[in-house]
Amino acid sequence: MKLFLVIVMDDTEINLNNILNRKSVRNFTDEKVDKNDLLKIIKAGMSAPSALNLQPWEFLIFDNHEIIEWMVDLHDYSKMFKTATAGIVVCGNMEKTIEGVEEFWIQDCSAATENILLAIESLNLGGVWLGIYPIENRYQKISNYFKLPENIIPFAVIALGHPSNNEKSKDKWDDKKLHWNKW
Amino acid sequence: MKLFLVIVMDDTEINLNNILNRKSVRNFTDEKVDKNDLLKIIKAGMSAPSALNLQPWEFLIFDNHEIIEWMVDLHDYSKMFKTATAGIVVCGNMEKTIEGVEEFWIQDCSAATENILLAIESLNLGGVWLGIYPIENRYQKISNYFKLPENIIPFAVIALGHPSNNEKSKDKWDDKKLHWNKW
Repeated sequence: MKLFLVIVMDDTEINLNNILNRKSVRNFTDEKVDKNDLLKIIKAGMSAPSALNLQPWEFLIFDNHEIIEWMVDLHDYSKMFKTATAGIVVCGNMEKTIEGVEEFWIQDCSAATENILLAIESLNLGGVWLGIYPIENRYQKISNYFKLPENIIPFAVIALGHPSNNEKSKDKWDDKKLHWNKW
Repeated sequence: MKLFLVIVMDDTEINLNNILNRKSVRNFTDEKVDKNDLLKIIKAGMSAPSALNLQPWEFLIFDNHEIIEWMVDLHDYSKMFKTATAGIVVCGNMEKTIEGVEEFWIQDCSAATENILLAIESLNLGGVWLGIYPIENRYQKISNYFKLPENIIPFAVIALGHPSNNEKSKDKWDDKKLHWNKW
């Protein structure tokens, strides 16, 4: 008789671990990111919630070497593009904002960006979120470079690729930030 | 000889499905949310990325009936608290913002809120994101009610509980929103 021991993590645990394990990855190997994986990542982005379900986002994916090189000098914190093999510009579409509370597009695009980072983690890839909006000289530069329509604002850039180091996530648990039923 | 057929989804698929399956749930049974599950949900929130890793968030969790009742009339879109059994106020801490780009706290709190919604989905619970900030009469009302310190701004409220209906997620894939290497 043969005995097999199978250790099974349940789906809940797997999903929570993916959220806890996500980390900012800034160093990558030269292996390209599979196109199908890029599509899965964008699909995750499009699955984010949005105010009134307006989905005010657009995604510009790049794996072209020239664009990646250009990103290296975008600003002081974009040097990870020296090794990144792909990137995503998450943009807001100003024609899909809500009168009086236009700023909700920022929250919607943030949720889409976080979904993208979690999808990257789940695919054993690595990525990092570069804040672009509301820093005018960052978003204008990107807007000019890609000749974006006037209603499209670059919100964030994600650098991604296959991680070259075995970086670990930080444990950011802090029970002082937790308040039960009152402040 | 006995043969067993085991169908195993890999972790990547499980994680991506959780992101795709998340939906806004507004109707709940009267079963309470387990306290340990609430802690797991908050831990997911605290695992979000933030600008300069400042983690400018605070979480007020409530399951007190009086608070839940009060939330029902918070504004026109908070009626889901008629059946919700718990809620979370995600707050921003203005002492943890970056000079010159204070607004990044909004993006950080949005990422934390999305992590919370994904953790809720993974626990087979349901939840929905109510936009609070920057609508002044919403965030002031909450601030007064909980007597929050001046540096703490209520950013979003999440209503949650055990879903009473078998609601399905929307497929929001739209390839017109996808741009490869150029606009």
